[in-house]
Amino acid sequence: MAWEENIHKVVPYVPGEQPVGTNIIKLNTNENPYPPAPGVADALRGIADEYDLMRRYPDPDARDLTKALADYYGIEDEQVFVGVGSDDVLAMSFLTFFDSDKPLLFPDITYSFYEVWAKLFRIPNKRIPLRDDFTIDPDAYLIPNGGIVIANPNAPTSLALDLDSIEKIVSGNPDSVVIIDEAYIDFGGESALPLIDRYDNLLVVQTFSKSRSMAGARIGMAFGSAKLISYLKDVKFSINSYTMSRDAIRIGTAAASLADENYFKEVTDRILKTREEAAGRLTEMGFDVAHSATNFLFVTHPDMKASDIYSALKEKNIYVRYFNLPRIDDHLRITIGTPEEMEELYKALQEVMK
Amino acid sequence: MAWEENIHKVVPYVPGEQPVGTNIIKLNTNENPYPPAPGVADALRGIADEYDLMRRYPDPDARDLTKALADYYGIEDEQVFVGVGSDDVLAMSFLTFFDSDKPLLFPDITYSFYEVWAKLFRIPNKRIPLRDDFTIDPDAYLIPNGGIVIANPNAPTSLALDLDSIEKIVSGNPDSVVIIDEAYIDFGGESALPLIDRYDNLLVVQTFSKSRSMAGARIGMAFGSAKLISYLKDVKFSINSYTMSRDAIRIGTAAASLADENYFKEVTDRILKTREEAAGRLTEMGFDVAHSATNFLFVTHPDMKASDIYSALKEKNIYVRYFNLPRIDDHLRITIGTPEEMEELYKALQEVMK
Repeated sequence: MAWEENIHKVVPYVPGEQPVGTNIIKLNTNENPYPPAPGVADALRGIADEYDLMRRYPDPDARDLTKALADYYGIEDEQVFVGVGSDDVLAMSFLTFFDSDKPLLFPDITYSFYEVWAKLFRIPNKRIPLRDDFTIDPDAYLIPNGGIVIANPNAPTSLALDLDSIEKIVSGNPDSVVIIDEAYIDFGGESALPLIDRYDNLLVVQTFSKSRSMAGARIGMAFGSAKLISYLKDVKFSINSYTMSRDAIRIGTAAASLADENYFKEVTDRILKTREEAAGRLTEMGFDVAHSATNFLFVTHPDMKASDIYSALKEKNIYVRYFNLPRIDDHLRITIGTPEEMEELYKALQEVMK
Repeated sequence: MAWEENIHKVVPYVPGEQPVGTNIIKLNTNENPYPPAPGVADALRGIADEYDLMRRYPDPDARDLTKALADYYGIEDEQVFVGVGSDDVLAMSFLTFFDSDKPLLFPDITYSFYEVWAKLFRIPNKRIPLRDDFTIDPDAYLIPNGGIVIANPNAPTSLALDLDSIEKIVSGNPDSVVIIDEAYIDFGGESALPLIDRYDNLLVVQTFSKSRSMAGARIGMAFGSAKLISYLKDVKFSINSYTMSRDAIRIGTAAASLADENYFKEVTDRILKTREEAAGRLTEMGFDVAHSATNFLFVTHPDMKASDIYSALKEKNIYVRYFNLPRIDDHLRITIGTPEEMEELYKALQEVMK
């Protein structure tokens, strides 16, 4: 078609499979195996009771939610930004903060979406190789650049970078905005959040999708200096005045409240316990298991191809994530499920690896 | 700060005021004065009952919702795209379809967001003046361009363009994508939807925020050829895999279903009746009232400045929309509320205009 000459063609990110049906064990998209905090159910009932309010636009600033998050983390409301999942927050952040002729830097092995956003927004970029042990070398980020994005803990490697190294990258790049994507921070690692008061070029991104069991609600957030956040808000308000629905604001506010804190900690502890158990069991089975600071394990086995294990598990209705990508095509990313789901996984693996 | 050199600074769109408090009559953001269909309340209760599902990502393709819309409008699923309100749908459409050195065309008086998106995405653009009577001249769009966006009915003028004129613009521009933004189409005007099977360069955008009383739910949609929609999906999947939350998909699906059709028609009829009554009353008071095909009236008065009427009404807790913009700074945009709210408006206007 003639009009195809004048449009923007892209190759999109492909999310993990979302199989439907019963008897499926889904360990492929790092969802939480436990339900959200009980406050979320109450909030949803509250929305149902007042469903007539749905005719009104939501608060464009989602103030209830930003305030609940600011209170929870002990920072100012002006240091908080919220969006439709951390992908939305990150996409808007790329559009806002990476606008230079110098390259955006990110690890060669990391969240695949970084490259997709860079391409979409035509941001020049350069991938910095991880070390052979898949750790991040902070010194490699002390080169001329137009911005930096690092997932910490990194995905799919599951490895955390220590806070001193993060600070070295942030302090060594005063000319650039540095984004630390902390989607998995509640499962391990040290958050860079305390650094936002000292470094106004630091943006810390988190999400409700993992530790808070609310992937279905689409809530992500960013923390940074008031100045950084205000630039991000300007771009948000240049795309969509009302990104956060009434329901998202209400259930997010409920889940972020201190009242639900104990439940949240209990669920996280349970996942960490299952993770350590799983790391032990998989190691016993001959897997090499990276030292995870996340709710998933990054594993490889010397005797069987990762793609074969992936396919064999899928036939048994167990979904894990396989990336057909350089350096990691011999690895699998396995989400931590309930102890019962993990037992099914061990059983299936024992059959598969025979 | 040094990093400010390397970021993208923009001037955002400013949405209508969202005052909070009781005793406020809000006729400034074209919300529906009536609640959503009862099916929406049931759907919300269903989400509350199954709140544990919230831990799972939603369907990235929002298939339930796209299918409900396809069934409702009698088109194919592949011809439907959904997003976080029509602003999200339009922003992604701008990013996808307007990627030319030739200018994007839109009316000089129209939805202010078009210019904001064009600036944000650095799309060259040219504003085509409305005629003196604020109508759109279709022939003015038969010039070299990289895309066209037209709101029909147009806002804030409230005027509809006939379908033959729309077709003239679409058929006369086979090299460009033409977006018809039909946010207000259910209140009058003829939808261009039947043309999507004949013109694969036509994208029709609609919303749940106005006629379906669901501004708070953030649901918008686009209809077009399967090819056009697939390009739009590629960009959507390059920004955020999961734009539509579980709750949005569920309540949108309920509201789009044929079961709620009678309620929807009844509400719309009520608004049209109030609109005709309001047009009569305001005309009696000396206002010049444009022939509205929307859920708002675009009015001007020969004896009093629009900005003064706006301020005087605001003091009485009645919010209408005033645009301090060339050609229309003597006009007000007044949303159609309930008959009771409109009586309060007439009363207040009588005091103000004395």
